[in-house]
Amino acid sequence: MSVPTGIAATPEPPYYAVIFTSRRTEGDHGYGAMTARMAQLGATYPGFLGIESARGADGVGITVSYWRDEAAILAWKRDTEHQRAQHGGQTTWYADYEVRIAKVERAYGKPER
Amino acid sequence: MSVPTGIAATPEPPYYAVIFTSRRTEGDHGYGAMTARMAQLGATYPGFLGIESARGADGVGITVSYWRDEAAILAWKRDTEHQRAQHGGQTTWYADYEVRIAKVERAYGKPER
Repeated sequence: MSVPTGIAATPEPPYYAVIFTSRRTEGDHGYGAMTARMAQLGATYPGFLGIESARGADGVGITVSYWRDEAAILAWKRDTEHQRAQHGGQTTWYADYEVRIAKVERAYGKPER
Repeated sequence: MSVPTGIAATPEPPYYAVIFTSRRTEGDHGYGAMTARMAQLGATYPGFLGIESARGADGVGITVSYWRDEAAILAWKRDTEHQRAQHGGQTTWYADYEVRIAKVERAYGKPER
């Protein structure tokens, strides 16, 4: 299973977004398998609403996951397997990253959709 | 000038994020020049804090711009040149998109940075 791509079908706001912006290190070192596993595991958590991800050729990537509330985000952050992945992110996979937790207040799509 | 890449150096929260997730149509049709111009013009608006952007080989892209408050977002949305670009986005450049306006409440980076 790979990370789902596309535009997440989120419900009406309010809900929460975790914006994860990162710059990769060189080489895979198990990164592809980890991201696929984390996308699969995270989606099983209560309150998970969707995920969007893009990484350009320059190594900069943005993954946004959507959640019902902050409690759901916190539960996922504390997942044991996710914590191991977070550690690997700090030591191996990411040269740099920033995590932003944001409350989505308004949303709209392409008009004619 | 191209769209800046990398991780935006945003201030301490709270501030606002506009998460723009899109799927491109085929072909450029002036898209590259438009995005570069919009990144340049948007950055001149009061309250602009930074921008992050990534687009994968599958055509799905995420651009997150950061703003001091909702008034700054609204002023930029109403910019005449930006409105022309928004119209082009609807008619030419994007097969689909979703815009989410979110209040960033917490943020943290890589520990040893």
